[in-house]
Amino acid sequence: MLRFTFLSFIFISLMSVVNGQSVADSLMIKKISDEVFMNGKAYSNLRYLCKQVGPRLSGSSGAALAVEQTARMLREAGADTVYLQPCMVPRWVRGDKEVGKAKLSSGKTIDLNIVALGNAVGTGAKGVTAEVVEVKSFTELDALGKDKVKGKIVFFNYRMDPRYISTFRAYGEAGVYRSQGPSRASALGAVGVIVRTLSPVLDDNPHTGATRYEEDKPKIPAVAISTNGAVELSELINKGMVKNIYFRTTCEMLADVESFNVVGELRGTEHPEEVITVGGHLDSWDLAEGAHDDGTGCMQSIEIIRAFKALGIKPKRSIRAVMFMNEENGLRGGSKYAELAKAEPKKFIMAMESDAGGFTPRGFGFTASASQRDRILSWQPLFRQYGALEFNEGGGGADIGPLRSLGTALIGLNPDSQRYMDLHHAKTDVFEAVSERELNLGVVVMAGMVYLVSQYGL
Amino acid sequence: MLRFTFLSFIFISLMSVVNGQSVADSLMIKKISDEVFMNGKAYSNLRYLCKQVGPRLSGSSGAALAVEQTARMLREAGADTVYLQPCMVPRWVRGDKEVGKAKLSSGKTIDLNIVALGNAVGTGAKGVTAEVVEVKSFTELDALGKDKVKGKIVFFNYRMDPRYISTFRAYGEAGVYRSQGPSRASALGAVGVIVRTLSPVLDDNPHTGATRYEEDKPKIPAVAISTNGAVELSELINKGMVKNIYFRTTCEMLADVESFNVVGELRGTEHPEEVITVGGHLDSWDLAEGAHDDGTGCMQSIEIIRAFKALGIKPKRSIRAVMFMNEENGLRGGSKYAELAKAEPKKFIMAMESDAGGFTPRGFGFTASASQRDRILSWQPLFRQYGALEFNEGGGGADIGPLRSLGTALIGLNPDSQRYMDLHHAKTDVFEAVSERELNLGVVVMAGMVYLVSQYGL
Repeated sequence: MLRFTFLSFIFISLMSVVNGQSVADSLMIKKISDEVFMNGKAYSNLRYLCKQVGPRLSGSSGAALAVEQTARMLREAGADTVYLQPCMVPRWVRGDKEVGKAKLSSGKTIDLNIVALGNAVGTGAKGVTAEVVEVKSFTELDALGKDKVKGKIVFFNYRMDPRYISTFRAYGEAGVYRSQGPSRASALGAVGVIVRTLSPVLDDNPHTGATRYEEDKPKIPAVAISTNGAVELSELINKGMVKNIYFRTTCEMLADVESFNVVGELRGTEHPEEVITVGGHLDSWDLAEGAHDDGTGCMQSIEIIRAFKALGIKPKRSIRAVMFMNEENGLRGGSKYAELAKAEPKKFIMAMESDAGGFTPRGFGFTASASQRDRILSWQPLFRQYGALEFNEGGGGADIGPLRSLGTALIGLNPDSQRYMDLHHAKTDVFEAVSERELNLGVVVMAGMVYLVSQYGL
Repeated sequence: MLRFTFLSFIFISLMSVVNGQSVADSLMIKKISDEVFMNGKAYSNLRYLCKQVGPRLSGSSGAALAVEQTARMLREAGADTVYLQPCMVPRWVRGDKEVGKAKLSSGKTIDLNIVALGNAVGTGAKGVTAEVVEVKSFTELDALGKDKVKGKIVFFNYRMDPRYISTFRAYGEAGVYRSQGPSRASALGAVGVIVRTLSPVLDDNPHTGATRYEEDKPKIPAVAISTNGAVELSELINKGMVKNIYFRTTCEMLADVESFNVVGELRGTEHPEEVITVGGHLDSWDLAEGAHDDGTGCMQSIEIIRAFKALGIKPKRSIRAVMFMNEENGLRGGSKYAELAKAEPKKFIMAMESDAGGFTPRGFGFTASASQRDRILSWQPLFRQYGALEFNEGGGGADIGPLRSLGTALIGLNPDSQRYMDLHHAKTDVFEAVSERELNLGVVVMAGMVYLVSQYGL
């Protein structure tokens, strides 16, 4: 019986693959794959974005140039229409290079390898000087209480847990110290915060990333220290050798400025009113080229348009490649896109985001209704030869999240996560860290899914 | 019915995972995983091998140092016994830095970015100067015939096919020009060969690798040219601008010397006479640090011993971590290991090799009997959470291949292949190209499979 049932399953699986339509779909995805690997432009476009445009934090001149250049890329890719969606974005600026020093009881001083957290207030020109208390968790912080925290700098030395196979899970657990740490510390009277960099590797690259102040708590300056720096500082503190810490940041949040989402569309031939969205976010942190975060997602989305045009694929439903602005420190672009979508007399049937790095794709995560889920799962065998086997419920992307309220099925590309957190939000997130083939393989599976939804709907 | 059958399958799959033994195995593999990610030494050992030992072509002083140092690492890992297996190996030396020039009809000369192929004869001090003919295949070469090839340098400009998702398949097709090209060309009277580098990326790094002369054909000098160099040279040839080509190599094959396989063993508690082999090859090409090829496979194998000892795992069957010598240009170590195995009164039940780079593991390929295969496949669900889903028939490794004649089940670790050929046999195959987490994840799935075989046999 077991054997019979197992064989039945295999038989049914095969049937689902070898029926005529699936064969045609499989051949079309292979055609797309060949086109992308033979003539793909995602890699050279990414080189341009990283090297000629560079860092592009919301509101910066780099972001403005990125808008202009990705609009050009979309036109060159052959989009039927290319347009901008204005939206107001926060404009945070880092100011001077950060300075950090630990004064030891011996009289000696050591440098701290720090960067300001995104959206943080600065210390002012004089900097902040105070004794330091180290904690490994909020539980430890709260146990110290106001008496021992007031007037101090709090050092959150939480080591990202290397035991999770998915580095995103480890990031999720560690991220609270960066996002909530400053307000949790200031609630107890702290005057500054140092957060250990969210990275699984020991090196000298502090990673930035947004912090979130609670409105009713004093806003105190906050920095990230490199993982090596955190280990060294912790040793000194535990030996009782640190007298006080000084750091100086001149970052500040300026008034909102206008920026844009960039949209390139292929109009559907049969159901132009059904819209498929596929995108990444165009802004990046100011420290790096934003190659994996998220130049790759943007370039992959443009490449889907290019490959479809190059192959003469006329999708039945409309496809929009979208470069979302301001994912990193405000999500204004994603919110604006959903707001405009609500007002359009169209149906936003599916949205896909690639914002987990341009690494080898392992599969998709999706947030969808039961019937949408069943259809997506039925396509899984088509992705086997590209190694994208893992179809999991749950997932999507920050920028497309606001579309969920319209009933849009959300699909997130899930690339291999092992290397991402090493370079995320750090100066090491550069073009050279991207593999051309991994980037292109991501395009192939994204394009395959977009193709299937464009043919069959959801 | 469909639904019922599908549910039955899911139920049966679940049953196979949740029975008591599988739960215990799953927990043990998780313990190994935690140990490797928390306290792993593979990455720091690899740093030592790459930076302190460096290149280690068979017969070189680097290879001798590598033998000494990996024996030390095995002792430090806690192997019960560590010993060397002497074997004679070829000793090929590159000689002077290669020089290559194309003389143009304009009188101008351009440099060619070349390296000698491994095992190749040199040109002698004067070099070789001749007209060049470009071909893209053996068919094109044979069509030219002796008249047009005699006295010429043959330029094999075969582009590695980027359309294969597995870069090993593309490498397999392209590899014949490097291995057979020189003898195929010399059979028609050619005086030298230039082979386009086997790499899917366009860059300035010529890749070396072994060529194989047929005994009855004249041995002619042979070099690889970088992919960018190949594109440039081809353009010049096709414009009729190349008058002749000069290259000079002083490589030569010296007499065989003694070298060693390095073996570290954990003795089995119940069936010490059943031996599980797990290894990589210790030699590397002379141009690079041999990080992915195959420092990673060696360090992973040592780490399995270390993790088992650290966790107090006492395997029922014996486990041997083996650093095979001379995979790159002779396979003498692998042959010697099998020869000695045949003479031992033991049963070599399984051999695993990791020699496809230290990238994220995707699964295993195995060459085994039907019953061995069924057992291996029954363990597949245990590897799901580590992303090693792809269990395919066929595969093993060059060094363990000779064991097949003993009935040994061969298992090859199959890591993600997208980046390997970019750096394979090139100076870019350095420690910095290895991700600590990817390396460790490979250890986890290798150790998991070794653990299961050590508990249950095959």
